[in-house]
Amino acid sequence: VKSAGVNPLLVSVASPAIVEARAWLAAYEGERGPVFDLSQAAPPYPPSQELLDRLACAAADPEFSRYGPVAGETCLREAYADHVSKLYGTDLLPSGISITAGCNQAFMIAMMCVAGPGDTVILPAPWYFNHKMTLDMLGIRTRPLQCLPENNFIPDLKELEVLIRGNVRAVVLTTPNNPTGANYPPAVIEAISKSCQKSGVWLILDETYRDFIDDSSVAPHNVFASERRHATIGIYSFSKSLAIPGFRLGAMTYPPALAENVIKVQDCMQICAVRAGQVAVAWALTNLYDWRREKQASFEEKRRQLCLEWAAAEGWTIDSIGAYFAYVRHPFPQMDAVAVAKRIASENGVLMIPGPFFGPHQERHLRLSFGGLSADELQNMTSRLAMQA
Amino acid sequence: VKSAGVNPLLVSVASPAIVEARAWLAAYEGERGPVFDLSQAAPPYPPSQELLDRLACAAADPEFSRYGPVAGETCLREAYADHVSKLYGTDLLPSGISITAGCNQAFMIAMMCVAGPGDTVILPAPWYFNHKMTLDMLGIRTRPLQCLPENNFIPDLKELEVLIRGNVRAVVLTTPNNPTGANYPPAVIEAISKSCQKSGVWLILDETYRDFIDDSSVAPHNVFASERRHATIGIYSFSKSLAIPGFRLGAMTYPPALAENVIKVQDCMQICAVRAGQVAVAWALTNLYDWRREKQASFEEKRRQLCLEWAAAEGWTIDSIGAYFAYVRHPFPQMDAVAVAKRIASENGVLMIPGPFFGPHQERHLRLSFGGLSADELQNMTSRLAMQA
Repeated sequence: VKSAGVNPLLVSVASPAIVEARAWLAAYEGERGPVFDLSQAAPPYPPSQELLDRLACAAADPEFSRYGPVAGETCLREAYADHVSKLYGTDLLPSGISITAGCNQAFMIAMMCVAGPGDTVILPAPWYFNHKMTLDMLGIRTRPLQCLPENNFIPDLKELEVLIRGNVRAVVLTTPNNPTGANYPPAVIEAISKSCQKSGVWLILDETYRDFIDDSSVAPHNVFASERRHATIGIYSFSKSLAIPGFRLGAMTYPPALAENVIKVQDCMQICAVRAGQVAVAWALTNLYDWRREKQASFEEKRRQLCLEWAAAEGWTIDSIGAYFAYVRHPFPQMDAVAVAKRIASENGVLMIPGPFFGPHQERHLRLSFGGLSADELQNMTSRLAMQA
Repeated sequence: VKSAGVNPLLVSVASPAIVEARAWLAAYEGERGPVFDLSQAAPPYPPSQELLDRLACAAADPEFSRYGPVAGETCLREAYADHVSKLYGTDLLPSGISITAGCNQAFMIAMMCVAGPGDTVILPAPWYFNHKMTLDMLGIRTRPLQCLPENNFIPDLKELEVLIRGNVRAVVLTTPNNPTGANYPPAVIEAISKSCQKSGVWLILDETYRDFIDDSSVAPHNVFASERRHATIGIYSFSKSLAIPGFRLGAMTYPPALAENVIKVQDCMQICAVRAGQVAVAWALTNLYDWRREKQASFEEKRRQLCLEWAAAEGWTIDSIGAYFAYVRHPFPQMDAVAVAKRIASENGVLMIPGPFFGPHQERHLRLSFGGLSADELQNMTSRLAMQA
């Protein structure tokens, strides 16, 4: 009798980072104060009461207990097409929009559409760990594009043009970035998009955190307003911007010619996204503008305070900070960031995700998701980093 | 400038059958009466009012707008472990249960756990089309195990033992079956499970429709009550039994040793299933027993009536009928079932799914999902099959 084995591709995939890191807190006994969990990019506030009312109302309606359209509710596809079109000054069609169970799923669907096992995808490093896990479990090869602190973690175009040669299927850009928070300048996004177009390579643009930067101060990139949108898949999450991760809703924008293939994957991966959530979000997209601006402003305020307080953190530097994340350098050249994170979690009760979880050459860095800290906690934050000798 | 291409694996995957078939109805002008859509296995009644109330209540609770555990809510994993354990006289642990966004997703997760690109899986034919689509898009090879009308579409063990030789990773069984409705005898399921165990091959057991057979009349199979559960993944859907497909909830049972790898896939595919739905279903599993028995009885009544009325359908025979489906043979030996289905949809307004959508050698068959027909409609059903010369 032989034992049934696990898919070797999956065995070699990393475990979910948040789950693994949270286990370190188990050893913490509270001696330095309450736990500061800076691990997950979870919205620190509840959804608006109006949205909760609409979610409940839709959940009570037996119509939304039935199967829905695979690509999503028409009302939400239309509202989202309109929303993105206004944002980028373009005219995306609802036939090029799918509603997904969050942005991780949107990424997996996008990857299954553009690359098969053995194909290669360029992923800027440090990367979002679920992107790497997804590529690994699908048997898609990752070619890292190393982003350096001295370049503010912005991908280097020349470096990209070297890497893009030879059988690459897609380039993934996450902007504002996870883990670094870096917001890529429109000119960089556009140049990379042109480079992709020249090489016949897809651009996958993850803009999960775009609502957490002050867009009034930056001109938007023109990728969706140019012909290059026909080789671009945009992915996005309603979890952060509407504070409803528990409803699992995200979106994809793609060239309508790809719809047939997107829908095959969606049909097998979930048939449709949760319907009650979709109709409520369609309302929220057009009606909660002020609520979202207010939340974005609260993130900006926290960002400002964190930067001010950080001066007191001896030897620690903020190498990058943006939408949801700060990416900080620890002051222990002889220690790996994983060891630093474990000690600060178990001894100080502060949980950060160590750089090596985001790819190669990140031993000096840790990611902080700072949105969940109150003003008082932000004030105490730096004193909680000091390690016992 | 080269154009960015689609993953060739995906291009060769079939389109979703229901979407494709529904397009045939567009040509129907109503001359034979209202449309009878027998294509999708959609519950023909709303959920219980008590369940809707609980869904609304959970959706209004901001706690369930937050991220939840990747494998599912503890309350639902416990309730489901208890439910399945009682059904099969065993003691499954919550640590071997995951909550998924429906049973299609459970199947995709199960396949990613047990097989990689280039591996082989045995799939009884006719098969559920999404199983085949999923295997195709993952690059997993399908070895068909042909199930014959003369064997009541029950898989043949000797045939299986020939096919299982050589690098097979899993055998998939769907019982009660989609499309045939056939309910496999426990002895057959157990013999196949033993054969899998002997060969070191996983058994994937899709029991989406198990609540729609009268289980008081059949002893349950012993797969989950034996050591063989350690090489078995059970998948299931709450969509049918609680009439909530719009909430996208299903479940997997697996050996707890597999949990680490299941969770990697779940984390990338959706992070967690919709939380408000999960807590409501945890309540429903233990409290809606009578409601579910009543619905099961209504299906049995429809099944009985369909068989009686069918005598009037000249030349058409019911080759198999069970839980949700009838699998019927059309009387036109010179016509392919796809052509028959198209004509009956566009000329008679009756939509059935043609056999070839379920695999090879199904040209004479069509699948009917009869649950949506009223007693009156069931009475008219056979008269709607007669085709104009």
